[in-house]
Amino acid sequence: MRNLKVMTAYRGTEYHGFQRQSNAVTVQEVLERCVSKVLNEPVGITGCSRTDTGVHANQFCFNVKTNSNIRNIGFVRGVNGELPDDISILSCEDVPLDFHARYDCKGKEYIYKMHCNESKDPFSADLMLHYRRKFDIDAARKAAAYFVGTHDFASFCADCTNVSTTVRTIYSFDIENCGDSVIMLVKGNGFLYNMIRIIAGTLIDVSEKRISPDDIPDILAARDRLRAGRTAMAHGLYLNRVFYSEEELFAGSGR
Amino acid sequence: MRNLKVMTAYRGTEYHGFQRQSNAVTVQEVLERCVSKVLNEPVGITGCSRTDTGVHANQFCFNVKTNSNIRNIGFVRGVNGELPDDISILSCEDVPLDFHARYDCKGKEYIYKMHCNESKDPFSADLMLHYRRKFDIDAARKAAAYFVGTHDFASFCADCTNVSTTVRTIYSFDIENCGDSVIMLVKGNGFLYNMIRIIAGTLIDVSEKRISPDDIPDILAARDRLRAGRTAMAHGLYLNRVFYSEEELFAGSGR
Repeated sequence: MRNLKVMTAYRGTEYHGFQRQSNAVTVQEVLERCVSKVLNEPVGITGCSRTDTGVHANQFCFNVKTNSNIRNIGFVRGVNGELPDDISILSCEDVPLDFHARYDCKGKEYIYKMHCNESKDPFSADLMLHYRRKFDIDAARKAAAYFVGTHDFASFCADCTNVSTTVRTIYSFDIENCGDSVIMLVKGNGFLYNMIRIIAGTLIDVSEKRISPDDIPDILAARDRLRAGRTAMAHGLYLNRVFYSEEELFAGSGR
Repeated sequence: MRNLKVMTAYRGTEYHGFQRQSNAVTVQEVLERCVSKVLNEPVGITGCSRTDTGVHANQFCFNVKTNSNIRNIGFVRGVNGELPDDISILSCEDVPLDFHARYDCKGKEYIYKMHCNESKDPFSADLMLHYRRKFDIDAARKAAAYFVGTHDFASFCADCTNVSTTVRTIYSFDIENCGDSVIMLVKGNGFLYNMIRIIAGTLIDVSEKRISPDDIPDILAARDRLRAGRTAMAHGLYLNRVFYSEEELFAGSGR
């Protein structure tokens, strides 16, 4: 028996998120079908995370146990040959049998992409949030700084009933601006349901002066979803990187 | 009567090029329908260029004559409100009645985008050429330099029967490399049918050592399409900028 650690990337537009569902097409279902075909045995895969409908991944890890003796490069080429255009296998390596893509994950980086211009970008209708106004990047950066550190993020969680704690640690929160693009990069040890989308939406409310940057500590302290801002749309969100060692996690913010 | 100079951008994937055809959906047809609706009169538009099926535009200029007294920002917002997600109006300004988007164009810049990696990019299936091998950027740059200047490009033209001369001037030819992306930027006073795609394909043949960089002068001199390389696929090609003054045209290579 082998355990393969596989990195993949996908465009989430056509999928109801990663996790298998009985009544909708998901990334997991398509991957399991293609991986099973190439391994020549029915397999289940274990993903590092769930993602919402329409959310993308530049890097998403899953592991799969198999009896196949396929070479790793053969796995990459074979599965890519079966997959549709919007899912790609990036790499495959053998790992110890007890490796678990979700439980062993040390941290994740998400990015949220916005196209800020009166005119839409015809290439990114489903890949960036189209924001028609000017985005106040200075105010957003000031607000973003308050999220860094260990906090109770209950105000930034859509449904916290299934988690034992709403305390999470954000290691870095950068906002980059290039031309009409604004990209938020958030790295942390874990994220609650809709947490990044609510944080991104709150920064949009900060840009529009509905929330002041200096309100963020009070909003965090309130532990009340109603105090935070809107939930930003799913199609601007990308799982950007997943980390399985602290060296990787703290090795600078390069993308 | 007014004459409006309009900048637009479009994702070419779903269109049979720019120019109106009787039997296929084109960008011109969609633009004319939406512009006529907003101007409240039937209009024809004059484009700066034809583009092939699947070719994209980051900047494409058309002009349209109208009796409407709509404000320019109202035109931009109104037409964008009518257009599908893959065509965008970027700007609109009044110009003299004799301005002609094609005849007055002083030069154009095209880019050709490649994703060079064994694994496909799930976000760019129809936006970049997927090239599975390593691209020899040094050899391609060496070959590219031979194209700069005024040459007879008959070897790099798919069908030259309709043009009075096959002599064109290329002002600059840069090849940029960022991560897995290779981007060729070519600026010139005009281009023959399929010229950039044949040049890009020839550079791929250079990368694969089927053609030597130093063969380019002989291939140009031969004036024979069969001496040049393959025609690179349309979906990597973008009309990137169009220039209506020599100041713009020679003001550095910024994109």
